[in-house]
Amino acid sequence: MTEVTGTRGPVLVVGAGLLGASVGLGMATRGVEVYLEDVSPTTLALARDVGAGRLMTDGDAPPQIVVVAAPPDVTARLVIEQLARFPHAVVTDVSSVKGEIEREVVAAGAASRFVGSHPLAGRERSGPTAATADLFAGRPWVLCPHEGSSKDAIVVVRELVVDLGAAPVTMTSQAHDEAVALISHVPQVMSSLVAARLTDAPQAALDLAGQGLRDVTRIAAGDPALWVQILGANPKAVLDVLTQLRTDLDGAIAALEQLAGGDLDVGDQQRAGALGALARTIAAGNAGHERIPGKHGGSQRTYDAVTVLVPDRPGELGRLFAEVGALGINLEDLELEHSPRQPVGLATLAVLPGVGETLTAALQENGWTVAG
Amino acid sequence: MTEVTGTRGPVLVVGAGLLGASVGLGMATRGVEVYLEDVSPTTLALARDVGAGRLMTDGDAPPQIVVVAAPPDVTARLVIEQLARFPHAVVTDVSSVKGEIEREVVAAGAASRFVGSHPLAGRERSGPTAATADLFAGRPWVLCPHEGSSKDAIVVVRELVVDLGAAPVTMTSQAHDEAVALISHVPQVMSSLVAARLTDAPQAALDLAGQGLRDVTRIAAGDPALWVQILGANPKAVLDVLTQLRTDLDGAIAALEQLAGGDLDVGDQQRAGALGALARTIAAGNAGHERIPGKHGGSQRTYDAVTVLVPDRPGELGRLFAEVGALGINLEDLELEHSPRQPVGLATLAVLPGVGETLTAALQENGWTVAG
Repeated sequence: MTEVTGTRGPVLVVGAGLLGASVGLGMATRGVEVYLEDVSPTTLALARDVGAGRLMTDGDAPPQIVVVAAPPDVTARLVIEQLARFPHAVVTDVSSVKGEIEREVVAAGAASRFVGSHPLAGRERSGPTAATADLFAGRPWVLCPHEGSSKDAIVVVRELVVDLGAAPVTMTSQAHDEAVALISHVPQVMSSLVAARLTDAPQAALDLAGQGLRDVTRIAAGDPALWVQILGANPKAVLDVLTQLRTDLDGAIAALEQLAGGDLDVGDQQRAGALGALARTIAAGNAGHERIPGKHGGSQRTYDAVTVLVPDRPGELGRLFAEVGALGINLEDLELEHSPRQPVGLATLAVLPGVGETLTAALQENGWTVAG
Repeated sequence: MTEVTGTRGPVLVVGAGLLGASVGLGMATRGVEVYLEDVSPTTLALARDVGAGRLMTDGDAPPQIVVVAAPPDVTARLVIEQLARFPHAVVTDVSSVKGEIEREVVAAGAASRFVGSHPLAGRERSGPTAATADLFAGRPWVLCPHEGSSKDAIVVVRELVVDLGAAPVTMTSQAHDEAVALISHVPQVMSSLVAARLTDAPQAALDLAGQGLRDVTRIAAGDPALWVQILGANPKAVLDVLTQLRTDLDGAIAALEQLAGGDLDVGDQQRAGALGALARTIAAGNAGHERIPGKHGGSQRTYDAVTVLVPDRPGELGRLFAEVGALGINLEDLELEHSPRQPVGLATLAVLPGVGETLTAALQENGWTVAG
């Protein structure tokens, strides 16, 4: 792949895990020279072997830009070191909390060449062997210039982001940290708390689990070591949101307490008040949910949903999608659901409004069992 | 479709919405006579028109089984009425909370012919026009016989469940209500509370939303009117779980408070203790999450994940799955992710361990951009 890149190399990547090696691979693939460093010789060798770059040697030209892609708790120190080591290089980092690092770097001085950043990208797997040149393609990548960041430094980091196929978004580190508390850190904590309640649940209860529970708890599988660093670096913003959420939870609990004591001495009016409080809880969730952007940043559309029974045999789901594709119908979204101990799955296909009927008819004609 | 059915009709369905009409359609499709009733003439006409059954007339044989598929708050009254109206019929209901209805019906007497039940099935759409004969296929359907339920009544309801393609599961109404509090009602409340926090969020924060937030808040789109009835009918079990969850939340909040006050006077030991508490929160979520059954009730497997860039044009996703199908590879799971304002989506294909590499190579050869 040869593309026009705005980035002038060499690029030095410090920390060659998933994110660092993907930056290296992305830039190397686009013809930019990349140096790699990592405290772990194994990680470094793996990153080099997947093509993410090479080791820097004494005669090499100094880097134009340094990307620190290390764990959050060592990032500030590494950024400060790199600013001192390469007096003409722009330095960025990719950690997921920005304020604390910015404060430490600015306090150390020489920070005009520093612009913190955060690519909203990741994978289930980690390490350089999971790296890919297209990890950031189509993802938002937040730039957090501080008050002293030079215009040149901002442009250099933005070029790198654009070269890697990401969509640059600029905000202050505080706005960033508040945003990720809302959209990532608090959902993580709540997902973990819901999942934790299942630890002692009877197996028979778990066997009734459906897609709703699976969705709410999917991210509860996250790595505790990583999340402690993230939450520990963003305690104030997470605390603000969690405290508000606890107030709402207290309201729901108070309403349920009134209803649970119903056979004692709760009047109709009190009961109506408690039910009203629960209704407002669910309605507020509706309102918040509607604000999450759908595809392409537009508002969420209501799609036609067509649910198809799919035998759990190799190729059956493939065959289904082949037929949908052959009809010239674009799938807007899709959910798969498997029932415990059943040899079939349910695939719910979301298509543009009005297309559902056509799709249903065509699939039924082809012998599929359409559950609506 | 002609199948061997254990159910002897006629079946009377009282309440011809999504669930009732689907029961009717499922039995009618299998050659069993179905009568329909509904307080709404429009709903009744629609249910009849989709083939869910016919209206009962004076000369008709009385039903052998009555399925009450009405809103939770009128279900007990309707069950009691039907037991009195048809002195030889078995009566079941399909509402999602069982204990309160059971208590009311048993208190009214003549309850040996009553067996409450709850199919774990539903759709985004409601009403008889969304009904389908296969709505229950492959889904668990809980039977809650009470102490006085006759053996005959239990067999009759179980036959109906099996005829409709569902997997019967027997438990007490109390065990059921505790189970759905854990796996459905509490996740609903928590999803709503997380989504509610987005109501006043800056648009720039929402634009960073990824699949994690979308998953956690998907069910927050649920109908307040329905959920008030469900939560209002199961306050004690929901309260028990929510109260435990609040204790865990208080622990996380206390830890974050210690960390947020870090620039004042928090010692290293105190900080380590707070981080340890957060790690235990996330780890407990891991443990609970691992207990959710995967496909076919087995434990969750780790699949190979292959993420592919899919242009957002009609047929592209279909073409991808056609090629996967042609390779003879079965998709075990799948996630679609669309980035705001980008003309591509990311499809993450889960395949059996060891198959990921083959799939990646084959897709790349066919010109797909594989992000890992």
